[in-house]
Amino acid sequence: MAAVTTTEKKTTQVNASKDSYVHISNPHLDNIKEDILYHFDLGTGTHDFPTLFGDVKFVCVGGSASRMKSFSQYIAGELKLGDPSDDIPNICAGTDRYAMYKVGPVLSVSHGMGIPSIAIMLHELIKLLYHAGCTNVTVIRLGTSGGIGLDIGSVVVTSQSVDASFRPQFEQIILGKRVVRCTELDEKLAKELLESSKEINQFNTVIGKTMCTMDFYEGQARLDGAFCFYTEEQKMQYLKEAYDAGIRNIEMESSVFAAMCKLAGLKAAVVCVTLVNRLQGDQITSTHEVLAEFQQRPQKLISHLIKKHLGKSEAS
Amino acid sequence: MAAVTTTEKKTTQVNASKDSYVHISNPHLDNIKEDILYHFDLGTGTHDFPTLFGDVKFVCVGGSASRMKSFSQYIAGELKLGDPSDDIPNICAGTDRYAMYKVGPVLSVSHGMGIPSIAIMLHELIKLLYHAGCTNVTVIRLGTSGGIGLDIGSVVVTSQSVDASFRPQFEQIILGKRVVRCTELDEKLAKELLESSKEINQFNTVIGKTMCTMDFYEGQARLDGAFCFYTEEQKMQYLKEAYDAGIRNIEMESSVFAAMCKLAGLKAAVVCVTLVNRLQGDQITSTHEVLAEFQQRPQKLISHLIKKHLGKSEAS
Repeated sequence: MAAVTTTEKKTTQVNASKDSYVHISNPHLDNIKEDILYHFDLGTGTHDFPTLFGDVKFVCVGGSASRMKSFSQYIAGELKLGDPSDDIPNICAGTDRYAMYKVGPVLSVSHGMGIPSIAIMLHELIKLLYHAGCTNVTVIRLGTSGGIGLDIGSVVVTSQSVDASFRPQFEQIILGKRVVRCTELDEKLAKELLESSKEINQFNTVIGKTMCTMDFYEGQARLDGAFCFYTEEQKMQYLKEAYDAGIRNIEMESSVFAAMCKLAGLKAAVVCVTLVNRLQGDQITSTHEVLAEFQQRPQKLISHLIKKHLGKSEAS
Repeated sequence: MAAVTTTEKKTTQVNASKDSYVHISNPHLDNIKEDILYHFDLGTGTHDFPTLFGDVKFVCVGGSASRMKSFSQYIAGELKLGDPSDDIPNICAGTDRYAMYKVGPVLSVSHGMGIPSIAIMLHELIKLLYHAGCTNVTVIRLGTSGGIGLDIGSVVVTSQSVDASFRPQFEQIILGKRVVRCTELDEKLAKELLESSKEINQFNTVIGKTMCTMDFYEGQARLDGAFCFYTEEQKMQYLKEAYDAGIRNIEMESSVFAAMCKLAGLKAAVVCVTLVNRLQGDQITSTHEVLAEFQQRPQKLISHLIKKHLGKSEAS
């Protein structure tokens, strides 16, 4: 099966003034009367997308529905758009596939675990932003990860997402053929996030490569899955090679996230806290309280950045 | 990168009498004092697995947490172990990664969408069943899918799970190397499920191949994703080739499900209802009521089979 490197052309692109619109690269969508975003339980025939979502400037995505709700409440407080203890309704209440919350210009969406789950969400999110006529949108994934050679609780801002063979690409099968897409992320945005961390000055943040795998156990060289057919030495060798290749953490969504945001012309970043140092162990043994504090770190960083962009920062 | 075909040996296997135990193929687990099943929020140090789960004989898994809860309530009524309107507590209430419900010998677990998401769940489920000392366990995935050449609402019992290139295998990357595993399912169990459908006599059920893809849109040749770089003719040709290869439906979890259940020595089946006939369209346009009735069909089939096995069938 030959690999087809992406030379895919953007076929539909709206350009007015200097605003950056969301790119939809699908001529067939023009023939669809009503576009049903099935996994969001939303549709252009039943929902007024420009009114509901037209003002969105930041989309924050993360695996867990409850964490994205907390993030939404936190950002409401930070942007002074509500009390953090106020309930925020789930826009996708008609389904339990994903959860979605909106606070002013910040949309928060859950994506489940793994490449296929976030890919479904991103297809529908990109169409949602397109139908809503959104401009100048930044998308940030915040999540948890296994670190390599970092103190636990460190935050990694991804410079480049690489696959389990350390290649900076996302490979998928379309019509039975291999298609390879670029996993570049926005360098300027990554630097801004690192800068935000320095300003907050509460935890360690680094910029590094992120390895995106298809499995949490064997796929990440763990010794504690139901199956393990390699030795501890082989595991350590693999992880050290990853470290030497510049990889600082491992998670399960960044490659397709980077590839799809790039195709859609969206500025994108990945910010993950590390819950374990994989050079020292596999199991996540910190207490719930410690893990809860760790998980707030990407939220703090992103909130700081959003406030600066919206001119709501105390420093701005 | 060379493909390594599975010659993996089962390294740990408990054998007593004629009972079939769950196979754990991981010698490292013996060195772990407390096994934390992180994504279930359960652990051998905090939970008594043999007492909690030792009597489990059937595990039913499906993507949506709310659907698995409904299934659990339904099976409680069918097995006369409770009222279907009774609330059943979520055993994994400490996390929102997965949901788990138990009614007598039937455990119901959600797995999210896609291969990585179900793989994490299966690693932890297999360890759970192993730690609990369960014997003679059958695992059935019930789900939704896109049909090929079938009336919508038809149920497909999978004979064999194939990848997006129609190969009956599951390929994954372990320590950077390609490992290929067998996706065989239990033939006798599939036939029993077909037999159950004939006895119920309420909807069409077929045995056929199931294609397991990594994406819902481009990966399944849909024309309604955010990106689409192929024509309708190319789409139709791909789907017709799939039909000619014996594929009757498309979903996103069956290959790793088959591979992992086989490695663990678990009898396994996949039963999915079809929500759309992909030869006629891509979008799921049926009403909520119709979709809800369709989604009950795999549940009815599996409940019928479980009742027969437990000697609770009216016919037995």
